[in-house]
Amino acid sequence: MKKYVFLTLAFCLQTIYINAQQAIWGGAPIVSPEINSDNSVSFRLQAPGATEVKISGEWMPFKNNAPGFEYMKNQDSVWVYTTGVLPSGLYSYYFTVDGMRCNDQNNVYQIRDVATIANIFIIGGGKGDLYSVQNVPHGSVSRRWYTSPTLNIDRRITIYTPPGYESSDEKYPVLYLLHGMGGDEEAWIALGRAAQILDNLIAQGKAKPMIVAMTNGNVDQQAAPGESALGLYKPIFRLPNTMNGKFEESFPDVIRFIESNYKVKSNKENRAIVGLSMGGFHSLHISRYFPETFGYIGLFSAAIKPFGEVKSTVYDSFDETLKTQKDNGYKLYWIGMGKTDFLYKPGEEYRAKLDSLGMKYTYVETEGGHTWANWRHYLSEFVPLLFK
Amino acid sequence: MKKYVFLTLAFCLQTIYINAQQAIWGGAPIVSPEINSDNSVSFRLQAPGATEVKISGEWMPFKNNAPGFEYMKNQDSVWVYTTGVLPSGLYSYYFTVDGMRCNDQNNVYQIRDVATIANIFIIGGGKGDLYSVQNVPHGSVSRRWYTSPTLNIDRRITIYTPPGYESSDEKYPVLYLLHGMGGDEEAWIALGRAAQILDNLIAQGKAKPMIVAMTNGNVDQQAAPGESALGLYKPIFRLPNTMNGKFEESFPDVIRFIESNYKVKSNKENRAIVGLSMGGFHSLHISRYFPETFGYIGLFSAAIKPFGEVKSTVYDSFDETLKTQKDNGYKLYWIGMGKTDFLYKPGEEYRAKLDSLGMKYTYVETEGGHTWANWRHYLSEFVPLLFK
Repeated sequence: MKKYVFLTLAFCLQTIYINAQQAIWGGAPIVSPEINSDNSVSFRLQAPGATEVKISGEWMPFKNNAPGFEYMKNQDSVWVYTTGVLPSGLYSYYFTVDGMRCNDQNNVYQIRDVATIANIFIIGGGKGDLYSVQNVPHGSVSRRWYTSPTLNIDRRITIYTPPGYESSDEKYPVLYLLHGMGGDEEAWIALGRAAQILDNLIAQGKAKPMIVAMTNGNVDQQAAPGESALGLYKPIFRLPNTMNGKFEESFPDVIRFIESNYKVKSNKENRAIVGLSMGGFHSLHISRYFPETFGYIGLFSAAIKPFGEVKSTVYDSFDETLKTQKDNGYKLYWIGMGKTDFLYKPGEEYRAKLDSLGMKYTYVETEGGHTWANWRHYLSEFVPLLFK
Repeated sequence: MKKYVFLTLAFCLQTIYINAQQAIWGGAPIVSPEINSDNSVSFRLQAPGATEVKISGEWMPFKNNAPGFEYMKNQDSVWVYTTGVLPSGLYSYYFTVDGMRCNDQNNVYQIRDVATIANIFIIGGGKGDLYSVQNVPHGSVSRRWYTSPTLNIDRRITIYTPPGYESSDEKYPVLYLLHGMGGDEEAWIALGRAAQILDNLIAQGKAKPMIVAMTNGNVDQQAAPGESALGLYKPIFRLPNTMNGKFEESFPDVIRFIESNYKVKSNKENRAIVGLSMGGFHSLHISRYFPETFGYIGLFSAAIKPFGEVKSTVYDSFDETLKTQKDNGYKLYWIGMGKTDFLYKPGEEYRAKLDSLGMKYTYVETEGGHTWANWRHYLSEFVPLLFK
C-alpha cells in the first residue's frame, strides 16, 4: 500500500487566514457564548478600541420600551459579561459597541427578524431541548414554489414532512402554520424552530406525524426577502395588503397545492391552521370564512380585527360565520396569549365574543408578551393536541 | 360592508422598536450597501464612537496574505466608502471598527464560510444575474436525512429538484455536487448559489433539467454545524477523516439513496460528479474508485493527493484505476483552476499524468485563486455541458 505525503502548507495558509483575527490577540481563541455548567452564560467580545460595550439579551426585561442591556467589562481588550442562571430556552442577543450595534463574531448562529440579525444560543434541560436538534429521526424540510391562481403569482412555501413520510404509503394530516407581520415563509423554520419541535414531539410520541405547511402571508410578496426576483433588498416590517382579506381569499390555493402534491388526508378532521400575531388573525378569519375546512384552529398572540380601514367581504358577517363555524363543529379552538402582550385587550374582547356565541375554546395565558419565546412554547403545546 | 378601525398604536410600537437604531441618529434610515447606477457600491456604517473604520471586500486584492482593506470616512458618525465600478458578480465584505470585525447592520444578507460570517451583495448585468433569483420557474430545495450503512450513521443532504420535477413522469439525470474542506451540505446552496445557477441555466435552455445532490463530505459529521445533535458549536476548518478514503467508500450509499427516492435515470451517462478543492479531490477519487459509475467528472480547484499520510485502498492503484476509467469511457472530464490557486502546481502535475495516460479532459484556467467567485463561475460553465 502506498503512502502519500502532501504538503500541508497550502491548507494551513487557509486555516491561518481564518484564524487570523484570533491570532492577532494571541492566546486561546475566544469562546462566546460559553454556557457554563450552572446554566449561566459568559459572553466575550474582542474590541480593543472600544470604550463602552453593552450586551442586550432576550432574557433581560425591557427598559423604557427599549431592549434592556448590561455593561460588559474590559479585560485586556476582551469585553466580558456573565449572566445569572438562565432557564432552559432559546435566547437571542447582540452587543452595542460605542453606540454601534453588532453581533458576536464568535457565534455563527444567527436569526433574522425583519431587518435585524441577532445571535442565538440554547440552554438545554427543559424547553430548550425541544428546540434543539436531537438524536432522533428527522423530517424533511423543502422550499418549493406553487402557483396561486387567486393572486396570479407564483409563491414560495416551506414544507415539513415527518420522518418516514417519503417511504410510507400512509396519508398524513396537515398543519398550516402562519407567520406574523414582517415575517415570511422562513419565519417558523428559523425563528420558530418548527422542524426541531415537530421532530422531537413526534419522537417522544407526543405528536402525530404530520405535514407542516409554512406559507408566506404577505400577498404582495412572492417569497422571503432575498428569495425573489426583487433581489437583495432591505426587509420592512409592514408590507401592503397584509390584513385586507386577500390572503384569506387566496388560502384555498395553498390547500389545493398541498393536497394535490402530498399524501394527505383531505378532510376537516385532518386540517389544522394556526398563526402568530397577524398569522393568528389570518388563522381566525380563514377558518371562519371557510367554516367547514379546519378541525383545529390556533391563535397565538393574535390580532383580531383588520389593521386600519379595510373593505373586504372576508370581514363581513363576523358573528354569523363564527356561528356557522360553531354549528359545523370543530375539534379544537386554541388561544394563547402573554399577560403583557400589546394585543391582550383585543384578545380578551374576542374571548368574550366567543363566550357570548357559546363557542368553546381552550385558553392558555403565559407570562411575557409578543415574543418568539412564547410562540415556540405555544407551538409545542398546540401540536400534541392535533389529529387525535 | 362594515369598516373596522383598529388602533395602530400597538403595531407602531413594534415598528419603532425595529427602527430604534435609525431613530437615535435621526434623519433618513441608513442604506448599505447601495449599488449605484454605474455599478460602484457605497457602504455606510453608523459608528459614532469609532476612530478608525475599514472595509474589506472580496473585490480587493489580498495584501501580505491577508484580506485587503480600505479606510472609510467619517461623515457625522456615519462612516462611508464607495468602490470603483465593479464587474458583475457576487461579493462578500465586512467592516473592521477599531480592530473589531463586524458586519453591516443594514444588510441582512450574509453567508457563513466555516466560522466566519460576511455580508454579500450582487452586481447584476453579467455573471451576477446568474447568481440572482430571477423571474423564472424555480426548482425545489430539500434538506433530508438518509442512512449511510457504510458509515453507520444518519446523514443530512441538500437536494435540488428542477422546476416541474414533482408533476412530471420523466426520469432525470443527477449531478453530485461536493463541497470543500470546512464546508458541508449547506455550502453549495448558500455560498455557491447552486439553486439560482441551475434555475437560470435551465430557464435559458442552456442546461438540462437535472437533480443536484449536495452531500456532506465530512464523514465524521452527520450534518452542518447547528443541524445535528452536537448543538450550536463553533465550526472548525479541518475535521478528522475528511481525506482518508472513507467518504469515497461510502459514496454508493448516497447514490443508492438518491436512486431509490427520486425519479432518476440510473446509468453512467446520467450521473455527474463534481466538487471544489477537497470535493474535487473526492470527485477525482470516487469516479476513479468506482470507474463505471460516472459519465461526467468535474474538478474545481481540486486537491489531488491525500492530506498527510493516509492508508486506504481507495488511493491504491491510482494510475491503474484511471486507466480503467479511461477504458470504460466517459463523456467529460472537466478541470477548472485559477492562475494563483495554491493548488495550481499539483493540478498541473495531475494534468501531466492524465496526458501521459492519454486521458482526455477539458481544462479551463481562470484569473484568481481558491475562491467561491471561481467555483460559482466553474459551476455555471460545467452544468451546460452535462447530459447532452
